[in-house]
Amino acid sequence: MAELEKKTRFMKALMELRELVMSGALEPGQRLSEVAVSQQLGISRTPLREAMARLVEEGFLERIPTGGCRVRQVTVADVVDSIEVRGTIEGMAVRLAAERGAAPGALRVCHDLVDRIDEALGASEAETDFEAYADLNAAFHEALGALAGSETVRREHARVSQLPLAGPSAFLQGQIAVPEIRRSLFVAQRQHRALIEAIEAREGTRAEALAREHARLARANLDYLMQRDPDEAGAVPGLAMVSAG
Amino acid sequence: MAELEKKTRFMKALMELRELVMSGALEPGQRLSEVAVSQQLGISRTPLREAMARLVEEGFLERIPTGGCRVRQVTVADVVDSIEVRGTIEGMAVRLAAERGAAPGALRVCHDLVDRIDEALGASEAETDFEAYADLNAAFHEALGALAGSETVRREHARVSQLPLAGPSAFLQGQIAVPEIRRSLFVAQRQHRALIEAIEAREGTRAEALAREHARLARANLDYLMQRDPDEAGAVPGLAMVSAG
Amino acid sequence: MAELEKKTRFMKALMELRELVMSGALEPGQRLSEVAVSQQLGISRTPLREAMARLVEEGFLERIPTGGCRVRQVTVADVVDSIEVRGTIEGMAVRLAAERGAAPGALRVCHDLVDRIDEALGASEAETDFEAYADLNAAFHEALGALAGSETVRREHARVSQLPLAGPSAFLQGQIAVPEIRRSLFVAQRQHRALIEAIEAREGTRAEALAREHARLARANLDYLMQRDPDEAGAVPGLAMVSAG
Amino acid sequence: MAELEKKTRFMKALMELRELVMSGALEPGQRLSEVAVSQQLGISRTPLREAMARLVEEGFLERIPTGGCRVRQVTVADVVDSIEVRGTIEGMAVRLAAERGAAPGALRVCHDLVDRIDEALGASEAETDFEAYADLNAAFHEALGALAGSETVRREHARVSQLPLAGPSAFLQGQIAVPEIRRSLFVAQRQHRALIEAIEAREGTRAEALAREHARLARANLDYLMQRDPDEAGAVPGLAMVSAG
Repeated sequence: MAELEKKTRFMKALMELRELVMSGALEPGQRLSEVAVSQQLGISRTPLREAMARLVEEGFLERIPTGGCRVRQVTVADVVDSIEVRGTIEGMAVRLAAERGAAPGALRVCHDLVDRIDEALGASEAETDFEAYADLNAAFHEALGALAGSETVRREHARVSQLPLAGPSAFLQGQIAVPEIRRSLFVAQRQHRALIEAIEAREGTRAEALAREHARLARANLDYLMQRDPDEAGAVPGLAMVSAG
Repeated sequence: MAELEKKTRFMKALMELRELVMSGALEPGQRLSEVAVSQQLGISRTPLREAMARLVEEGFLERIPTGGCRVRQVTVADVVDSIEVRGTIEGMAVRLAAERGAAPGALRVCHDLVDRIDEALGASEAETDFEAYADLNAAFHEALGALAGSETVRREHARVSQLPLAGPSAFLQGQIAVPEIRRSLFVAQRQHRALIEAIEAREGTRAEALAREHARLARANLDYLMQRDPDEAGAVPGLAMVSAG
Repeated sequence: MAELEKKTRFMKALMELRELVMSGALEPGQRLSEVAVSQQLGISRTPLREAMARLVEEGFLERIPTGGCRVRQVTVADVVDSIEVRGTIEGMAVRLAAERGAAPGALRVCHDLVDRIDEALGASEAETDFEAYADLNAAFHEALGALAGSETVRREHARVSQLPLAGPSAFLQGQIAVPEIRRSLFVAQRQHRALIEAIEAREGTRAEALAREHARLARANLDYLMQRDPDEAGAVPGLAMVSAG
Repeated sequence: MAELEKKTRFMKALMELRELVMSGALEPGQRLSEVAVSQQLGISRTPLREAMARLVEEGFLERIPTGGCRVRQVTVADVVDSIEVRGTIEGMAVRLAAERGAAPGALRVCHDLVDRIDEALGASEAETDFEAYADLNAAFHEALGALAGSETVRREHARVSQLPLAGPSAFLQGQIAVPEIRRSLFVAQRQHRALIEAIEAREGTRAEALAREHARLARANLDYLMQRDPDEAGAVPGLAMVSAG
């Protein structure tokens, strides 16, 4: 079998298994049966096993001493720290881009994405196209990770963006329902523009600080969902697996 | 087979394969034959395959489109950026420790390790016990990664310390032979003490900056070895695989 | 004459002379006649001379080699850098407050001021009481400067807040007329709350970064007034003395 | 009288009065008699009064409610915070130089000064020419303050360098006698080189952090002199006026 097809099957297995775990359909602590999951998702054992190994690294699953994996109990503290890690690495990525100078073409892509996010946002929360926002936001953050022109930085940024609920769009699907969070998108977009401005002005310290503060919005959304309105937590995929403890 | 034994065999395979790659015995670009490596290292195929997958993630190997893995061409830029990533995550770890407050017991361990590093250093370069220094230094950095009391932070710190030549002791084995680098150990130790002082004083900004500057010593050593004295590069395991390009 | 009365007369002279210079009534480069200014403002020569000396230090006036003072030509670059200095010192003040821990009473004062700023802002720009906002904002920033419990820090913060157009409320009087700037008050208030949150959580790095970014709002307002709408610049006292050069 | 001569007489009065206060010859709390000081230093009343006003601003003197000035009781905390202020402003100056790019000519001056500091240091502490070091060090720090090409930044940096014992060479005169501090000069010089390297590489975050850490050396020297060896404190002009409280 060609390597490319192998990789495709692995990526498919990874995304479907990650989604299954984040949906809360599997209880924390519950042992994953390879046979059952393989049948449920319709994927063969080899890519499934590789996907499980990856989810162990990402902190969604943990190995059981007697063999196999189980769903990990993710706590709010885990998610808070994962967001901190992502914000820190994203901050490093944009600082290096500012210090080393970003390629004009890559900056144009960022400008273009931010312009299109403006369109997705619309004039007010009532007009926002959330699906478009989530896609463009994910693309913008991916572009930030690559802006320093370093494959090492890009790879690490992509990796930490996969930590439990640490990704830039982790809370976006639920934001349709939660006004408090919907308003935060306009604050986020203001930070997007400031980030590009700082990188272009070669202001690395400011760019790094903005990226960290930007990640704090995700944490504020997490706090809001966990503390003030437990019912709304169900609206965000992945939050179902998070315990308050 | 028990999970624990599986893990032990995986760790053994990982360390031996990593050492083999870093030794320069395999040419960059050379395809790894599972059969040959399995026989050479005397480890069975399953843990070997898992070790190869990990080394792909760490940036030592890369997958070949037609199947299998080959040794990656690691450039100086890769190592520079890996050191930057490690310094950034270590900086985050000590900043969080300073902000949240570190456990007294964990701080005592750090103090104790630094005292023992003083003993290993001796009064001057001529007296330094390098093997002891390297071990204690590795233990000290591992302790820093855990000081914030966060499993997420500890795990990420441990992971980025495995990036190619990014670990805190990556250049220590070669330092026996290189006076310039041997002197740098005394500068490093001064930074170790300042780091603990800053964490205890709850000065997170200073702690983070010190950890980053501390990682820069590794980069200075890399620059020194690559630029000024190509012959000495051979004395550092792993440098053999780094191209100047 | 009692020292207190002397000081009062000096402060009165200082404020009136500063206002006169910022009003643009005196041309940049124009020599100040002690006699004329003394009569115009109705203040005696000794406090006037002390006030002139202070305004030389603040960068509003400059000494003439042949004796006396003249109004300095303040450029946009001067104001940009003065804002940077103020943001940097304010950042240091809140970082130290976070690291050393702020007194509960002083934090309560900050919380109270921010609550009252909410009231002054109202639900939207149309409802904002600008005079109340400007007073409360000035009081809040003064409180931030004192939060570290250091007289040295408080004094330096107060001093740099007097640099040309660097103060936290420098652009507030004109904001009545400029919608773009009026909207920025709501962004500023969000930063006020985040600042207190960071100080209370002992997060010095975040507090420092927030204070710097907060000062950038003043710079954004300056840029807006100077570049996009020269006519509106007249609405802000002090901008009349700033040249684009 | 020409303005230039006036300024010269003011500067002379300022330096002599500052030296008198720092020598400890005047008790903290002691009222300064204008007549007596004027006769003692051989300077006329007008420049003396201006010098006293400046020393009030610098924190060496304080005004008495009933008129006149007295020597302020400077505490260790005052000096610690003054050093922090100077390090913060110096950090800002070098960060801006890195971000905006420093003029090649100005950088050459810095390189040249650092080369000459190497000569002044010699191969070991026994060979160090302290007088030359102190002069070159002062010139180097003055050059750093100007490197961003901003008159506002240069002026503020010069001003905070005059805060009590906050200047870069505040502890240098006493270092002839104190081995611990003499060794610190070699650490300081290492930081000088790293500072220039960071500015040239456009690494503003690193440059700022280095300048702050560099100022910490002054604080370490202060701590050393105040806590471990009260007798040696007498060797440093200015320390005589500092109380431990």
